[in-house]
Amino acid sequence: MRTLERDQVKALLSAVQSGSIGIDDAVERIRTLPFERIDHIATLDHHRELRSGIPEVVLGEHKRAEDIARLLLALSGGGGGALATRVEAAKAKEVLAAVTGARYHQRARIIEVVPAAQKPVTGGDIAVVSAGTSDLPVADEAAITCAFLGHEPLRIDDIGVAGLPRTLAASEKLRDARVVIAVAGMEGALPGVLAGLIPAPIVAVPTSIGYGVGAGGLAAVLTMLATCAPGVSVVNIDNGFGAAVCAVRALGRA
Amino acid sequence: MRTLERDQVKALLSAVQSGSIGIDDAVERIRTLPFERIDHIATLDHHRELRSGIPEVVLGEHKRAEDIARLLLALSGGGGGALATRVEAAKAKEVLAAVTGARYHQRARIIEVVPAAQKPVTGGDIAVVSAGTSDLPVADEAAITCAFLGHEPLRIDDIGVAGLPRTLAASEKLRDARVVIAVAGMEGALPGVLAGLIPAPIVAVPTSIGYGVGAGGLAAVLTMLATCAPGVSVVNIDNGFGAAVCAVRALGRA
Amino acid sequence: MRTLERDQVKALLSAVQSGSIGIDDAVERIRTLPFERIDHIATLDHHRELRSGIPEVVLGEHKRAEDIARLLLALSGGGGGALATRVEAAKAKEVLAAVTGARYHQRARIIEVVPAAQKPVTGGDIAVVSAGTSDLPVADEAAITCAFLGHEPLRIDDIGVAGLPRTLAASEKLRDARVVIAVAGMEGALPGVLAGLIPAPIVAVPTSIGYGVGAGGLAAVLTMLATCAPGVSVVNIDNGFGAAVCAVRALGRA
Amino acid sequence: MRTLERDQVKALLSAVQSGSIGIDDAVERIRTLPFERIDHIATLDHHRELRSGIPEVVLGEHKRAEDIARLLLALSGGGGGALATRVEAAKAKEVLAAVTGARYHQRARIIEVVPAAQKPVTGGDIAVVSAGTSDLPVADEAAITCAFLGHEPLRIDDIGVAGLPRTLAASEKLRDARVVIAVAGMEGALPGVLAGLIPAPIVAVPTSIGYGVGAGGLAAVLTMLATCAPGVSVVNIDNGFGAAVCAVRALGRA
Amino acid sequence: MRTLERDQVKALLSAVQSGSIGIDDAVERIRTLPFERIDHIATLDHHRELRSGIPEVVLGEHKRAEDIARLLLALSGGGGGALATRVEAAKAKEVLAAVTGARYHQRARIIEVVPAAQKPVTGGDIAVVSAGTSDLPVADEAAITCAFLGHEPLRIDDIGVAGLPRTLAASEKLRDARVVIAVAGMEGALPGVLAGLIPAPIVAVPTSIGYGVGAGGLAAVLTMLATCAPGVSVVNIDNGFGAAVCAVRALGRA
Amino acid sequence: MRTLERDQVKALLSAVQSGSIGIDDAVERIRTLPFERIDHIATLDHHRELRSGIPEVVLGEHKRAEDIARLLLALSGGGGGALATRVEAAKAKEVLAAVTGARYHQRARIIEVVPAAQKPVTGGDIAVVSAGTSDLPVADEAAITCAFLGHEPLRIDDIGVAGLPRTLAASEKLRDARVVIAVAGMEGALPGVLAGLIPAPIVAVPTSIGYGVGAGGLAAVLTMLATCAPGVSVVNIDNGFGAAVCAVRALGRA
Amino acid sequence: MRTLERDQVKALLSAVQSGSIGIDDAVERIRTLPFERIDHIATLDHHRELRSGIPEVVLGEHKRAEDIARLLLALSGGGGGALATRVEAAKAKEVLAAVTGARYHQRARIIEVVPAAQKPVTGGDIAVVSAGTSDLPVADEAAITCAFLGHEPLRIDDIGVAGLPRTLAASEKLRDARVVIAVAGMEGALPGVLAGLIPAPIVAVPTSIGYGVGAGGLAAVLTMLATCAPGVSVVNIDNGFGAAVCAVRALGRA
Amino acid sequence: MRTLERDQVKALLSAVQSGSIGIDDAVERIRTLPFERIDHIATLDHHRELRSGIPEVVLGEHKRAEDIARLLLALSGGGGGALATRVEAAKAKEVLAAVTGARYHQRARIIEVVPAAQKPVTGGDIAVVSAGTSDLPVADEAAITCAFLGHEPLRIDDIGVAGLPRTLAASEKLRDARVVIAVAGMEGALPGVLAGLIPAPIVAVPTSIGYGVGAGGLAAVLTMLATCAPGVSVVNIDNGFGAAVCAVRALGRA
Repeated sequence: MRTLERDQVKALLSAVQSGSIGIDDAVERIRTLPFERIDHIATLDHHRELRSGIPEVVLGEHKRAEDIARLLLALSGGGGGALATRVEAAKAKEVLAAVTGARYHQRARIIEVVPAAQKPVTGGDIAVVSAGTSDLPVADEAAITCAFLGHEPLRIDDIGVAGLPRTLAASEKLRDARVVIAVAGMEGALPGVLAGLIPAPIVAVPTSIGYGVGAGGLAAVLTMLATCAPGVSVVNIDNGFGAAVCAVRALGRA
Repeated sequence: MRTLERDQVKALLSAVQSGSIGIDDAVERIRTLPFERIDHIATLDHHRELRSGIPEVVLGEHKRAEDIARLLLALSGGGGGALATRVEAAKAKEVLAAVTGARYHQRARIIEVVPAAQKPVTGGDIAVVSAGTSDLPVADEAAITCAFLGHEPLRIDDIGVAGLPRTLAASEKLRDARVVIAVAGMEGALPGVLAGLIPAPIVAVPTSIGYGVGAGGLAAVLTMLATCAPGVSVVNIDNGFGAAVCAVRALGRA
Repeated sequence: MRTLERDQVKALLSAVQSGSIGIDDAVERIRTLPFERIDHIATLDHHRELRSGIPEVVLGEHKRAEDIARLLLALSGGGGGALATRVEAAKAKEVLAAVTGARYHQRARIIEVVPAAQKPVTGGDIAVVSAGTSDLPVADEAAITCAFLGHEPLRIDDIGVAGLPRTLAASEKLRDARVVIAVAGMEGALPGVLAGLIPAPIVAVPTSIGYGVGAGGLAAVLTMLATCAPGVSVVNIDNGFGAAVCAVRALGRA
Repeated sequence: MRTLERDQVKALLSAVQSGSIGIDDAVERIRTLPFERIDHIATLDHHRELRSGIPEVVLGEHKRAEDIARLLLALSGGGGGALATRVEAAKAKEVLAAVTGARYHQRARIIEVVPAAQKPVTGGDIAVVSAGTSDLPVADEAAITCAFLGHEPLRIDDIGVAGLPRTLAASEKLRDARVVIAVAGMEGALPGVLAGLIPAPIVAVPTSIGYGVGAGGLAAVLTMLATCAPGVSVVNIDNGFGAAVCAVRALGRA
Repeated sequence: MRTLERDQVKALLSAVQSGSIGIDDAVERIRTLPFERIDHIATLDHHRELRSGIPEVVLGEHKRAEDIARLLLALSGGGGGALATRVEAAKAKEVLAAVTGARYHQRARIIEVVPAAQKPVTGGDIAVVSAGTSDLPVADEAAITCAFLGHEPLRIDDIGVAGLPRTLAASEKLRDARVVIAVAGMEGALPGVLAGLIPAPIVAVPTSIGYGVGAGGLAAVLTMLATCAPGVSVVNIDNGFGAAVCAVRALGRA
Repeated sequence: MRTLERDQVKALLSAVQSGSIGIDDAVERIRTLPFERIDHIATLDHHRELRSGIPEVVLGEHKRAEDIARLLLALSGGGGGALATRVEAAKAKEVLAAVTGARYHQRARIIEVVPAAQKPVTGGDIAVVSAGTSDLPVADEAAITCAFLGHEPLRIDDIGVAGLPRTLAASEKLRDARVVIAVAGMEGALPGVLAGLIPAPIVAVPTSIGYGVGAGGLAAVLTMLATCAPGVSVVNIDNGFGAAVCAVRALGRA
Repeated sequence: MRTLERDQVKALLSAVQSGSIGIDDAVERIRTLPFERIDHIATLDHHRELRSGIPEVVLGEHKRAEDIARLLLALSGGGGGALATRVEAAKAKEVLAAVTGARYHQRARIIEVVPAAQKPVTGGDIAVVSAGTSDLPVADEAAITCAFLGHEPLRIDDIGVAGLPRTLAASEKLRDARVVIAVAGMEGALPGVLAGLIPAPIVAVPTSIGYGVGAGGLAAVLTMLATCAPGVSVVNIDNGFGAAVCAVRALGRA
Repeated sequence: MRTLERDQVKALLSAVQSGSIGIDDAVERIRTLPFERIDHIATLDHHRELRSGIPEVVLGEHKRAEDIARLLLALSGGGGGALATRVEAAKAKEVLAAVTGARYHQRARIIEVVPAAQKPVTGGDIAVVSAGTSDLPVADEAAITCAFLGHEPLRIDDIGVAGLPRTLAASEKLRDARVVIAVAGMEGALPGVLAGLIPAPIVAVPTSIGYGVGAGGLAAVLTMLATCAPGVSVVNIDNGFGAAVCAVRALGRA
């Protein structure tokens, strides 16, 4: 319950107590306030976000530059941070002209408004790994989102299974990670192989890198879902942002 | 490195130390033992498993009763526990006749060999929820696997979004879960709705319950991957076991 | 708000009024009753259902006979009616043995419990038409559901477009229908053709009747969605029940 | 039968009556006029359209600007209104130069010719809701079409289920709608959730907004068809126009 | 116009002529007889069928034995012939017990009622060829239908392109065919290869014979549609009957 | 056998006859001319082509302008005609600059070189019909190809089944056609409806016109294959050329 | 050219030489013998088969027991060997009763007739590896076919990448293989990983083992085609026989 | 083991021998060097590559010009050769400006750095054939890769099965090839037909050439996988490079 809502109910109950409103009328007034009650759920969520330092994030893909700018300004008002994902370079230029203090991560296509008072960032609990150099933009989206949410990830790139020694060498470094985000296109075999080598859960991100039967990420997403190595779960193709939220959520309140 | 392997290397080094073998010969012998070296990775894994109390699990679906029985006996030798998933009733009957102390969870199609010395089981960190009564076998598979791996889950069933009040009521109880496994067939909307209500990561399990365009779980798996609510990752259709491993891994070493 | 719930709140307010409970405590108790509050939404729904004479319906496909029987008895308790869809003959036999007064519509695979006090049934507002004789079971499911919900439909069968004169003749009889449920398998062209001939909205039901590229209803569902004749909307393959609910809802409160 | 046609038949019958033509010849002449006879069906349709105030609509997508202009002029001749959908901005500019009194709804990509004598527009029977801001163009297409057909809809936008409190709040406002058009991309869960909350039939419009497995609207259309909440029927991806016609037809003659 | 219908109109016109019915009433009565008018189209069709000796055919797949029997009796009444396709052996046995003079083609799954007065059958204009022995049932369905419709086809089997010399040898024999029905499963390459060798149009029938990516005939139907050899058109998977009708129609009236 | 080839063999045989070459050597020379031998099969084909007036046709889609020009010049050498399909406007301009006497059919994207001595063209045996105005380019490709191959087709456009009276009126005019090419996009229902109305075989051409589930022609091609009206066979999406060749082949030698 | 054919041509040339047949007649007779010429190609093939010891193989899946028996007897007549693949146990029993000396490999579903004079079998050039125990039947089909064709393969099973150390250990043993057949279901990642470790070409066989999105082998076949590790080529799902033929062909004549 | 690594191990063993490090410490240090050990596997691979003259190859498709240039320079350092595939013309121009001695194969989209000391190239063992002129770029990619890897292939183009005599003539020339790479788009029937005519294994490359149901190469890849002619294995659509590596690997060490 938000303060406002709590005050409303309190006032109502005081009126009941004082006899200025009858019980039946009070019952009816409580009955007609479903939204506030439900909204209080969202309020609790909001409290959690404030508490854990996770600001809201704007999905920029189908929004106009002016709308993205307006949302970033609103979210970062009062010195907070804000993030917009999937913003193409041309659109980003427009946004940056309107939002002071915003910076653009070009390869990741992310606009970030750094909060005035930078919150402490922990590191190493999450690792973001990628199979090939073409998967880097999606890996970047995941990594920048993690950092924005307070968890600077370990990054290891270009460890696809076609060059297995690289994969094995990397797996050694991943043994202490609490969650691993594994980004891969083409046939997408990396997460399943990793899951057999390390103890952390793998959040697999198929990418749209590929051609022929792998075009658009189809082969990768099917491979990742069908893997017989337990410990792998999958997000949508190219959804580095979503994987980052899964990883940060898994770290939890501690 | 297993003890055996460590002993081999030790003996070799002793021989070098004593001069009974030359350095070049020793280099060559080390070079020709790739398997033990790699096997040592598996060994480390094995150590982790012993340490975290997670025994191996048999996928029973395409195996013969006699093979399942043999594997369960091997795994549970010395008083350990063992698990076999996706075992049909008829096959399970054969297995149980051969494996003393095994029990069969019929709806979940799981055979479990309870370890002699039951390890302490923690509870409540993981929640397993399901959308409809037809999704119960898959939810059972997830829940029994969690418990077997040392984490008795909270269970809430039949909370599909077609009856949203049930979903909302359940979400209140899920606020303290550290990981939520959400099992749903048909259109599979439950995980995305939950992700907007609670802070835990959702491991979504599409089920093959459905007909028409939802037959075999197709609509459910696509919905879960495509959800715009961040915090949902997905395993293969009906893969309750895999979701449980993801959840237990996310709880980590702590 | 159900009576029970209303009584709970009333008691609480009385306690506030009488001073036996403080305002802050009362606020807190209201805050911790989210379910009743949400349930009250369901309650409103329930009121609507009682008012419009639409009892709940059991999807029998993945339920055991004993569960179907138990649900039907609960729903029809106190002389009300109840319906269970997609119940195979063998299972239906078991259910009927347990539920007095239930009857089985074999072709439609529906079990119906007729309410003690039969409510007045209106007719002719809804028409259920089908393309071929193989589509009859799904057309039956739609028609029986409509009747159960208080609207005896007009039935015209076997009017597929391969024999266009039949289609045209039928369309004359459909000019006064307020909603038309059109059931068709194979290439599923009937709804689009009808939409060009009559003023009512068409709720199209693709059926799984077909073979080759039409197997499982794929061609039919795509055709119906892709039709260039406006006025057609589509439900899942074989979902006669869902189409009936759409049609009855469209008739509304009047 | 159009007046022209009726006059033709009358003249023929007069000739029979007067004996100036033999019965066999008259039979033959009637036999050879199939088109007028069939056309009379179209004529009846036309009468209905005039009666209900629903003018024809031009699908502009694959037509050249000059053709769209010509059609709009023909349809709106004599002071009537006319509508062309799916017209890109550049093409629209050309059309507007040729059609006096036409206006362009840019986001909806609709050209509208407002009739000279504006017919009375009723409101509130239809509601058009959308899940996200990216779905607005399709929601606009539906809403503008409804208004053009005489039914100004209630509009509620951005109520996707990832932010469930918004959905619930909106559902309260939808309780009196007679038909709800629900527009959603990504995973398309909104219509199914709404159907569990409100009594009106839902005409669901999947949009092509989405990426990865949701690209082109695939996940949304499957989800909407597969929903287990009865009361949802679906039109083609992005087909806001078609949904509007369904809704207006459902309101019927009353 | 059928005799019956013609008589109706004649009577009406006589009444006009005699003055016993007014012209306006007569106009109205003509207006309300759309079906007969449209039916006259069907009547013309029927005339063509009588003229060309093509009786109707029953699709037996989803019909009960008793319904098939009833239809065959009706169609063959008065000494005519009749055909029912896709009738499984067990069902056929029931049908044959009820329909005197019917015979069952087991491999083709066809029941045939030979007409009392056998019409002259021409031969050689149509050829039915098949790629492998597993395609024989579908080739049989095509061939028996052709013969039943008055055109005994040339049969050449097992000429798949994996053994190209057989294909080439067969192509020599096909040079005089006016239409070739080519039946093939697996990769379905036969029709395209034949089209490059012979002058006749090829009606290609993909069969459901195949496994893996060819399961259900998918690879075959795509290959046949995608062939770059002009002169091939395709019917549904396993639709030997449909191909036969295409071929007989192509021979036309001559 | 081409003249050249025939001369070669003749010379060889003359040499045998005159004794200037031994029999074994002659056998060997015949053995080592596989191509001519095989080419003689093509030669027979060529003879048929000359006899029936059907010149070769160039698929222009993936060829460069210079290659198309060269092929057209080669094919039309000596006063013959030639055709190139699927040539975009820009490329066509280049080709026309290089090929004297060629003309470009813009909507059909066809370049035609009219033969010096125009062969007599028959008309009316083939009809080309289309469902909507967007299908016209493909219908044009079919019609121009037919005419080029000596058969001027009857054209009837815009007779899609959403406006059934147009379809019925057109079907009257199609009763004398020997083959009907039916071109349709969107849901592709036209061919199946026509097949129930007229005696000619229908060569159905799905077009890529459509959106959502009909995008690229998917719904149309499935509908046409799955139609339950016998007498329809299907070519690839947008393949008007292929349909024309099927139709002309069906007319045969007569 | 077969002897018979050669003799025919010789006789013809002799007749030319002696003047008993004119040159034009001889040209015509050569023209009319295309088949023998082409058949001679098949003859060469046959020679190759005799030379390399590769007898024909019967695909038993859609053939009746009696047909399989007949074919095996024909192929093995004169003491040769013969093979029939995809023969279910019940059918195999019937075949074995009719074919003396045949044996049945149950797991591989192969019937083998061992030739009277066993040809020398070489070993080790081909390796057949499999990912899981469920893939064994397909691996067996490949291995038995290889041995039957004269190449006893090295077998290593259960080396799937989920247990990478096994894979790595196996790869050491595969370094000397000239061709590796890699059989895998589920996500099918084994061939791609192996291709990065060993120099031989990998013939990948996806199996139908899998469930959910991997059902029927879909994920496996896509993964194998999409792998970014060069050196992998793929055969149809479960096609162990085809892979064996590829491998044996690759060993060639040497 | 690389020299560096070997030296490390040697130094360690010397320290053991001299007693300057204890055995347990040495064991531990060996345990902590997994990468070098695994790297030694890669090292062996590298040795093989040097031995067989196969340099690494850069996949240029998703890389920037500067990255491609850098990689080519690194790979060709010291006078070696290097190859980059899938480089568009504009990007290639940039690369060539930076890499001295590189040349661009435009149709194949390959950049090649010819090694200083050209290694001897053998010819004729591999054949690269293509079905149509549109398949030439992919055939070029395969052929140039083969040549770069030391095997100049035989090239035969435009031998698609729609003109079977060309196919047959070509097959004569392919009888001595040890591996045949067959490139085909559209329906992709060429590899299956060839496999029935020649003894070599066929590595089939589907191309993305095609339209309608063949768009993107779908029909071709399915046809090639489903072919019933044994001896065909398939790589990804347009993957000429991968096919070349398969072919060169099949030739092996000899």
